[in-house]
Amino acid sequence: MTVNREIHLASRPQGWPTADNFRLVETEVPTPGPGQLVVRNQFMSVDPYMRGRMDDVRSYVPPFALDAPLDGGALGEVVAGEADGIAPGDTVLHGLGWREYALVDARSARRIDPDLAPVSAYLGVLGMTGLTAYAGLLDVAAMRPGETVFVSGAAGAVGSMVGQIAKLRGAGRVVGSAGSAAKVERLAGLGFDAAFDYHDGPVRDSLRAAAPDGIDVYFDNVGGDHLEAAIGAMRPHGRAAICGMIAQYNDTEPPAAPRNLALVIGKRLTLRGFLVGDHGHLRGQFVQEVAGWLREGRLSYDETVVDGIARAPEAFLGLLRGENLGKMLVRL
Amino acid sequence: MTVNREIHLASRPQGWPTADNFRLVETEVPTPGPGQLVVRNQFMSVDPYMRGRMDDVRSYVPPFALDAPLDGGALGEVVAGEADGIAPGDTVLHGLGWREYALVDARSARRIDPDLAPVSAYLGVLGMTGLTAYAGLLDVAAMRPGETVFVSGAAGAVGSMVGQIAKLRGAGRVVGSAGSAAKVERLAGLGFDAAFDYHDGPVRDSLRAAAPDGIDVYFDNVGGDHLEAAIGAMRPHGRAAICGMIAQYNDTEPPAAPRNLALVIGKRLTLRGFLVGDHGHLRGQFVQEVAGWLREGRLSYDETVVDGIARAPEAFLGLLRGENLGKMLVRL
Repeated sequence: MTVNREIHLASRPQGWPTADNFRLVETEVPTPGPGQLVVRNQFMSVDPYMRGRMDDVRSYVPPFALDAPLDGGALGEVVAGEADGIAPGDTVLHGLGWREYALVDARSARRIDPDLAPVSAYLGVLGMTGLTAYAGLLDVAAMRPGETVFVSGAAGAVGSMVGQIAKLRGAGRVVGSAGSAAKVERLAGLGFDAAFDYHDGPVRDSLRAAAPDGIDVYFDNVGGDHLEAAIGAMRPHGRAAICGMIAQYNDTEPPAAPRNLALVIGKRLTLRGFLVGDHGHLRGQFVQEVAGWLREGRLSYDETVVDGIARAPEAFLGLLRGENLGKMLVRL
Repeated sequence: MTVNREIHLASRPQGWPTADNFRLVETEVPTPGPGQLVVRNQFMSVDPYMRGRMDDVRSYVPPFALDAPLDGGALGEVVAGEADGIAPGDTVLHGLGWREYALVDARSARRIDPDLAPVSAYLGVLGMTGLTAYAGLLDVAAMRPGETVFVSGAAGAVGSMVGQIAKLRGAGRVVGSAGSAAKVERLAGLGFDAAFDYHDGPVRDSLRAAAPDGIDVYFDNVGGDHLEAAIGAMRPHGRAAICGMIAQYNDTEPPAAPRNLALVIGKRLTLRGFLVGDHGHLRGQFVQEVAGWLREGRLSYDETVVDGIARAPEAFLGLLRGENLGKMLVRL
């Protein structure tokens, strides 16, 4: 264990990123100082929001630096260092992925119980991904029982949770969009009432067929024409929780849609963007409720796992192309 | 008083309406049945939302019918009929404008006190216009003291109220946009901290100069590039109350803006459309507070008055072109 491998940002993508934007770099395994832990990462998360951090623009998180390791959600076993009640042998969740060994400030690590659920779940259904779905649906969009919910990117990590939580919380009808026939079939298995492949025709038409009486809540992971179709389908007082707009993250020109935004007036719609970080107060309630559904076998989750740090860029690029079912993870 | 004149919709406008879309028609003064009043209208309101009702599309109010009188807010003196405690000589507010004599269901008429304020105020500052400003700013956008507020169409009936109410309720900075140098000058007189003519350059640049530290609340009367500029200027957790999008009411192609909608995520913005009709529960509080400000001389309002039913179409067309300062009214 003398070599640590990590992924650096070699150059900033213009439009769609490619393998050339990344570089695998060998360094030494770090030595912990006071209050620090060395974590041998077992899983790291790749997430759509990371695309935005590759651009050199001011946003809610600073951009990734060039010629430095990327970062993001990860978990692994503490192999050196002891602080804040965390010791070697513990499994911890932290924010320094994209590397095999991470030097972590103990105050920013959270110990997890590997016996309660497979550890990877803490990066997905029981982690930031799950809380994003839970908070966006129930807090931001304030879904009420009986309502019709539409979620885009529904076979992804967040979307598949949104649809299932909606059903478990009493939604009248849940509709999902996804990018392949296989994903659409999977959505039926997850309990969605209707689902469509957005390649099969204009989203507006597919949504109208899937939700002929309109929708009350839209959970947006995609943006663009999905958002436009949702605004068009919304019933009065509808709410959209805007979580992501993956359709346009790689666009070099700003998107023209939605062109029907004026409908928000007559229909009294609310469009609300959110970041999961603002909803940490829901974590306790979220973990209790979701862990209960998992125990009872009422909630399923998919994972797409890619092996090895060298393939982390490939996992990320695959995520942007929608090659994942459920949570996209790299096993280190 | 044997002839009643009223304005009919002769044809549906394609794009900008013209005088040809209207027809002056002579009818007989109606006779009241049980529960009905005949009102000799003294003032009628022309409002931007009426443009939408001229199109044959489903919306929150039914479209105007062809070859039938238009309608909208109006007030006048009861000259015949007696019901629901209303009798000849009373002044009432109702929804049947665009005609000299209206046959009004007494249950949809509201008696007003002509001694408390000039009666025209009940169509503006003390009426639907004022409540729109009050509810949109304080309820929909939930403005808090110290915040920076931007309002477009700021010299109009609603916009000029929004800016003044914001100041009276403790806004830190209030910025308005308008369509002429004379209007911009008027906004300074109304207590706006900064104002600009949107013809003077890109709205984005003018807004940045007027609110260099960004805005917290945007009250939208205009849409299009105003909304895009506001989204760009918003600080985290900013809120937009979307009241109107007059810039695009006469467009035959859907607008491309705002192209920066993805910013709602990272900045956690809320965009909320509203109609004043949903906020009637605030009316008591609104009248009390606004009447108080009027009595104390702390709130001013402008009126642009056009005389005669025959000129009502001209008043409406002028409103769409922004020729009014404050509330546009027709005196009958």
